[in-house]
Amino acid sequence: MNRADLDRRKAEKKRLGEYAANLVKDGMTVGLGTGSTVAFLLEKLGERVQNEHLQIKAVSTSEATALAARNLNIPVFDINDVSTVDLTIDGVDEFDPSFNGIKGGGGALLYEKIVAFVSDFTVWIADSSKAVKQLGAFPLPVEVTPFGYQHTMKALRKMGFSPECRMSGNKKFVTDGGHYILDCHMEKIIDPKALSVRLNALPGVVENGLFIDVVDEILIATDQGVDILKKKKL
Amino acid sequence: MNRADLDRRKAEKKRLGEYAANLVKDGMTVGLGTGSTVAFLLEKLGERVQNEHLQIKAVSTSEATALAARNLNIPVFDINDVSTVDLTIDGVDEFDPSFNGIKGGGGALLYEKIVAFVSDFTVWIADSSKAVKQLGAFPLPVEVTPFGYQHTMKALRKMGFSPECRMSGNKKFVTDGGHYILDCHMEKIIDPKALSVRLNALPGVVENGLFIDVVDEILIATDQGVDILKKKKL
Repeated sequence: MNRADLDRRKAEKKRLGEYAANLVKDGMTVGLGTGSTVAFLLEKLGERVQNEHLQIKAVSTSEATALAARNLNIPVFDINDVSTVDLTIDGVDEFDPSFNGIKGGGGALLYEKIVAFVSDFTVWIADSSKAVKQLGAFPLPVEVTPFGYQHTMKALRKMGFSPECRMSGNKKFVTDGGHYILDCHMEKIIDPKALSVRLNALPGVVENGLFIDVVDEILIATDQGVDILKKKKL
Repeated sequence: MNRADLDRRKAEKKRLGEYAANLVKDGMTVGLGTGSTVAFLLEKLGERVQNEHLQIKAVSTSEATALAARNLNIPVFDINDVSTVDLTIDGVDEFDPSFNGIKGGGGALLYEKIVAFVSDFTVWIADSSKAVKQLGAFPLPVEVTPFGYQHTMKALRKMGFSPECRMSGNKKFVTDGGHYILDCHMEKIIDPKALSVRLNALPGVVENGLFIDVVDEILIATDQGVDILKKKKL
């Protein structure tokens, strides 16, 4: 990617983050996602808390986001200490026309999925590169227990999913939940729902990065503004 | 249960454990379960290692079993450091005529399920009280992430499963994997396979105590000896 593309991508993320921050209303409990687009959301939300005296409770999908939010004076609560989440705003690594997505590039898929599951309304913010016709070009993150991960990896390999243990420098990447991540190179995912069931049936798999029937709206950046994609009600 | 019953149950467990220890052959990699019946297996197996110079590799389903086995001079390896497991011997809390079982009364269900999954052959040892017509009288243990466990519990309650967070004294019980256990009072489980899929689809659920298509043989204690139940091949 050249410099101009990088600048454009960054401007898109900023526009999305700021737009999404304005979806938050006074009194809400808000789920905060993880990642580079969410970083812009946090900045703007921190400003609103400061300048508009917005009263909100935030719950976080990662330790990194919790830390960043607290530094911006956004009050962060333990997910177990709130009864509901009104609105969750998160990024996404890939999404298809049916509003299925792949998440977990940042390693926070487990907590992101739990917060989205609890949330009444979930919005993804995505720069223009994230929309795909079919999921699978982005490697699917699968969160696994360190206990027996070599065998879980072998099982995934047998299934043809080319798993690769995610590293952080020369050590294995460890999630906030204390697990490893196996990035599965699928190329094409024909049936995301069936695949999710199959992965979660493996005893060593804690969760997988397929987000199905989770998101209500997707905000995507356009040249000048933001497009809102709404999920068609069945 | 009166004293005579307790004595009989203990004698059964001892007989089973010793019988199972004799299934282990020289050169095998053996998966060791967790629980009170397995304790007798470990004792006998330790004796055989000592007296018969049995050469085996053991992998353990819990820290408790690993510690007990090492104290009996049974060589214990990390599950990630063995390529296969030839035979796993474990207890079970309830099993039905289709060889489906509930495990996790001792809190080791996740690692037990991983080891069984890796194992070429799995045997359960069960005193006479564990055979049931239909699973569910024994509360089904569901292992969950501490993150969001209150919401996972709420979801299970809505499903009608009456979850109860397992305690250890006045603190929450924490598994070897760092998770909590929610014991679900189901009474009757009509379709174990469908239930397992449904539970594992909840984002906060790491694993559940339903063991389906896992066991090859079940040894049950009789008045004087041991009965071997073999799974009917389909």
